[in-house]
Amino acid sequence: MNFKYAHRMNGLNASEIRELLKITQQPEVISFAGGLPAPELFPIDEIKEANRLVLEEDGKSALQYSTTEGYDPLRKWAADRMNKMLGTSFDYENILITHGSQQALDLSGKVFLDEGDIVICESPTYLAAISAFRAYGCEFIEVPTDEDGMVISELEKILKTTERIKLIYVIPNFQNPTGRTWSIEKRKELSELAAKYNVIVIEDNPYGELRYEGEQLPSAKSFDKSGNVLCLGTFSKIFCPGYRIGWIAGEKEIIKKYVLVKQSTDLQCNTIAQRDIAKYLELYDIDKHIAEILKVYKKRRDLAIKTMEAEFPKEVTFTRPHGGLFMWVQLPENINARDVLEKCLERNVAFVPGGSFFPNGGKENNFRINYSNMPEDKIVEGIKCIGEVLGKFIRG
Amino acid sequence: MNFKYAHRMNGLNASEIRELLKITQQPEVISFAGGLPAPELFPIDEIKEANRLVLEEDGKSALQYSTTEGYDPLRKWAADRMNKMLGTSFDYENILITHGSQQALDLSGKVFLDEGDIVICESPTYLAAISAFRAYGCEFIEVPTDEDGMVISELEKILKTTERIKLIYVIPNFQNPTGRTWSIEKRKELSELAAKYNVIVIEDNPYGELRYEGEQLPSAKSFDKSGNVLCLGTFSKIFCPGYRIGWIAGEKEIIKKYVLVKQSTDLQCNTIAQRDIAKYLELYDIDKHIAEILKVYKKRRDLAIKTMEAEFPKEVTFTRPHGGLFMWVQLPENINARDVLEKCLERNVAFVPGGSFFPNGGKENNFRINYSNMPEDKIVEGIKCIGEVLGKFIRG
Repeated sequence: MNFKYAHRMNGLNASEIRELLKITQQPEVISFAGGLPAPELFPIDEIKEANRLVLEEDGKSALQYSTTEGYDPLRKWAADRMNKMLGTSFDYENILITHGSQQALDLSGKVFLDEGDIVICESPTYLAAISAFRAYGCEFIEVPTDEDGMVISELEKILKTTERIKLIYVIPNFQNPTGRTWSIEKRKELSELAAKYNVIVIEDNPYGELRYEGEQLPSAKSFDKSGNVLCLGTFSKIFCPGYRIGWIAGEKEIIKKYVLVKQSTDLQCNTIAQRDIAKYLELYDIDKHIAEILKVYKKRRDLAIKTMEAEFPKEVTFTRPHGGLFMWVQLPENINARDVLEKCLERNVAFVPGGSFFPNGGKENNFRINYSNMPEDKIVEGIKCIGEVLGKFIRG
Repeated sequence: MNFKYAHRMNGLNASEIRELLKITQQPEVISFAGGLPAPELFPIDEIKEANRLVLEEDGKSALQYSTTEGYDPLRKWAADRMNKMLGTSFDYENILITHGSQQALDLSGKVFLDEGDIVICESPTYLAAISAFRAYGCEFIEVPTDEDGMVISELEKILKTTERIKLIYVIPNFQNPTGRTWSIEKRKELSELAAKYNVIVIEDNPYGELRYEGEQLPSAKSFDKSGNVLCLGTFSKIFCPGYRIGWIAGEKEIIKKYVLVKQSTDLQCNTIAQRDIAKYLELYDIDKHIAEILKVYKKRRDLAIKTMEAEFPKEVTFTRPHGGLFMWVQLPENINARDVLEKCLERNVAFVPGGSFFPNGGKENNFRINYSNMPEDKIVEGIKCIGEVLGKFIRG
């Protein structure tokens, strides 16, 4: 049979990362590919206790349908947390609980994008955001980024001269894939441009709490007077990703639209997952838990940087992020990272080639390294291997 | 600010049911509104034990990211269950785990519908399917239904004369909202028409296991030779809805497309929810659990029918379903069920007016009764009250 799919299905490809992840599940593979948190840090016993109490205290409600908006104590925690960490002023009604940040991206596409609309993004940007938005038929304009975020003059030039811009998508903290962080000034300027040109900003923030040095910075939202900035958050990196619980925060008027759209998309998030997390947050000190994560990840980042400095050819440059999970490696222009990956996979080492992080394509001489999910000996072994392969590509 | 939403947001309204559910959460309200399972039947202790074991045996994997397709043992269970109950021949690769059946509807829209495409449905049909598909800009054609399903000659007339038909959406077992069940012949004919006209059928089946009398019937899929029929399933009504775990089953080629779309929509379903349910199914006898549910619901259905026969005016007719959660009440043409609801709400009794179950509108003289979620004394009290209100509307 020749089944008649929607046009959006043409050219829709499997996420390179999720396909790679299947290969990297083999235990002999040293993987710098996924964005996987280190599972040895999951608070398993505490979660077991939280679940036990949730089911004992109010199992009937915990297993029943619940409101689309989400579990109120969890919405309140998310609002308070953002206010504390990011300088916002949300209350619980500003929050919709979502099925991970990824669903918040999908719902953003559904709420805002018509076919032919334009999404502005960093170049490069998170590849699953590209595919989430693309499902709604949009086009992308990539804005060049430097060490402290989008080049704002370029952004304004585009905003001034282009019609049908609906969204600006940014990850200001420890960006995926580059690991870069926006300066306060650029956050402020972004927020002002969003107001001036009446464009919605989606401020994604999965890694903001994973800061290994320097000070927490206020979000673009904290400078937002027009209501155009929406913030995403998630428990995936500070707690565990298996629960698929995140949130979107914004003006109540806009959040109400998201609620309508979520109703018809999947009714609501998992009731018991929301209650388990809320109970964990009530019983335990998540800051203490995050501090433990930071200690381990910082050590891994330091080791990855040190090993790359020693083992990578001088022609290869890379970012040195102050937090998050990723480093971005830049190769000489004539080298295609997909070829490098092929050689590395032969030696059981994996990373993600950079090409698919550019929605409009054409840039293959870079790749992304995740350092959070491998023990230290594997980090050294794997990076040495990549260094050797790169050496052969460069010096033949 | 005048935020610029997508066109699909125009005219998108809150689900009448989910808004009503907020009212009916007050304990004094007797609600026949939602499709809520009875929470006193949730196997709380067994779930607690399953969760404890899942976290003890393999907590790291249970809390980590996992594949988009879903947890293989759960996919296998779903395939085996459908083969046993519905006469299909699936294996685990025919199954994608979804965030409830509702997400399977949303993904179906995303995989198949372009703006202006047509969805054929029963008249009336499940209202959240209407809103899920409508988000992709489709139009609806309603096919008249009689006691044993769609009028097949009418369906073929439409298929023969209409372009751009992409989906036929049906609920052959104890349909929502009417409670009606399709005959075997009509299932077979539907499957043949799907092949003849190369149209996808979405065979939704949330209530099929809740049969209080008569024999299980084979699904339309069991007669499908072309691969055009897709089946939905869910744990919401036979286990508990709070987990938000369901599935879609179909040809592997089609399921692969769904997997791609789910990747960019929300990456994957809750890992630990899938493992908890799989562990429950491994440890306990779900058939025994379902038998307990059936005993309680059958009693409630019988009582609801008996009370309606005694208390409703003769001018009012209603279905007598052999299973599921819903009955459909037909009023004289001049009576609007929304007015009846208003009077009933004054007396703290709720149900769902039927108008929104017709995608093209225009039929307000009917409503839906759910009988699964109220204890027996409340069923009698609530139906008596509706009967009195109806009496006043009819006899003044």
